[in-house]
Amino acid sequence: MTNPTAAVVIIGNEILSGMIQDVNVSYIAKRLSTVGIKLVHVRIVPDVSAMIIDAVLSLKDTCDYLFTTGGIGPTHDDITTASIAKALNIPLELNIAVLDRIKTFFVGTGQLFSESMTKMAYLPVGSTLITNNISGSPGFIVENIHVMAGVPIIMQEMLERVICTLQHGPKILTKQIELAISENVIAADFEKLQDKYQLVEMGSYPFKSGDIYCTLLVLTSSNAAMLELAYSELCSLFYQFAAKNT
Amino acid sequence: MTNPTAAVVIIGNEILSGMIQDVNVSYIAKRLSTVGIKLVHVRIVPDVSAMIIDAVLSLKDTCDYLFTTGGIGPTHDDITTASIAKALNIPLELNIAVLDRIKTFFVGTGQLFSESMTKMAYLPVGSTLITNNISGSPGFIVENIHVMAGVPIIMQEMLERVICTLQHGPKILTKQIELAISENVIAADFEKLQDKYQLVEMGSYPFKSGDIYCTLLVLTSSNAAMLELAYSELCSLFYQFAAKNT
Repeated sequence: MTNPTAAVVIIGNEILSGMIQDVNVSYIAKRLSTVGIKLVHVRIVPDVSAMIIDAVLSLKDTCDYLFTTGGIGPTHDDITTASIAKALNIPLELNIAVLDRIKTFFVGTGQLFSESMTKMAYLPVGSTLITNNISGSPGFIVENIHVMAGVPIIMQEMLERVICTLQHGPKILTKQIELAISENVIAADFEKLQDKYQLVEMGSYPFKSGDIYCTLLVLTSSNAAMLELAYSELCSLFYQFAAKNT
Repeated sequence: MTNPTAAVVIIGNEILSGMIQDVNVSYIAKRLSTVGIKLVHVRIVPDVSAMIIDAVLSLKDTCDYLFTTGGIGPTHDDITTASIAKALNIPLELNIAVLDRIKTFFVGTGQLFSESMTKMAYLPVGSTLITNNISGSPGFIVENIHVMAGVPIIMQEMLERVICTLQHGPKILTKQIELAISENVIAADFEKLQDKYQLVEMGSYPFKSGDIYCTLLVLTSSNAAMLELAYSELCSLFYQFAAKNT
């Protein structure tokens, strides 16, 4: 059984300007991996309809699940919903139940209601809601596209609500070891090990600890037995350099 | 005069697995904006040659400058240089001066030299080096593609070395104001302001401060006079809600 795959489109000028540090990619990646879904591609695009449409249409058929974050609020720069509807050629319709829910939620939190909030209740015909209790306004699912908020705490709640609807894969497992030596020293043997264990993905990440050149070796696989075998051999090969293993 | 544009390709399984939080996108975005270059697109791809090639070929003609980070080390998962050479159909050649420099650097830091380091001295024919004093091994420029390391501190030094070679644009300026009110209340007036000032990009970002629903409004432009006009009008419109402005 192979792992289902996912892609993410992060939508927002604030990420591309560097004003806000994206933290959604790593969160989504880690959460999906716990249910055996592998993130394989990310795009970050501005609040420009043509670029959102291009990203969504390019990615949706390359993976099992596409997620978007950002651009579903009430202001003029929130164009994700309209862009995705346009990309799929699906009209938007006012969802009265959603509008009522938004009104009730906002009144309940002591905020003023304004007509601009109506925008958040226009959703693509046939889409499935992704509710949340933090902002009151929903994301939605249309085809394999999961449209979520950009604010991390809201996105995280939305992701929890959809994760049980996704096809899970075998859990993606990781083993790692830190070596107190530069990666160039172990590169040749590490490559041989990778060649031997094709079902285990092996990565090497250099770092410095004080003045010491170090290397973090990471083994990833959804085949637990193969991972253990490869890791055991890795440890035998490099035990003399090991600083820490987990 | 318009702003030159840039795109970034982040290469690495460690970012897509969530094991490492990317911080290069926001750094590059902010540093480029100080010299008037606008980041318009980012892709994050795994250590898979076909995906690196697709990202590079798709993006390089859509912007003035393309930057890549990651995948230029000595191990088997470092495939950026070979992938870019393949994408552009340019052969790799051994750069003896680079190899000597890498050897000297590593011996100087007390590390062992191994043959695998030779890999880092194979560069596309005709490429320009991006040197750095931290790891000793260079990035390179080929066509409009700037190939940099993934380790943030090394990437940052490489970016400094190329920034003076780029065509700078008018500085991208930002003004912002925090409102102690939900964005839905100001959405309609904010949109009218955006319609009036086409040269100013206006974004709205909701957040909570304790129990209070707040909104950060951000105005961005490389036209300083227009930005001041728009910001002045923004402050007049919403002064009664202002919590903080900068």
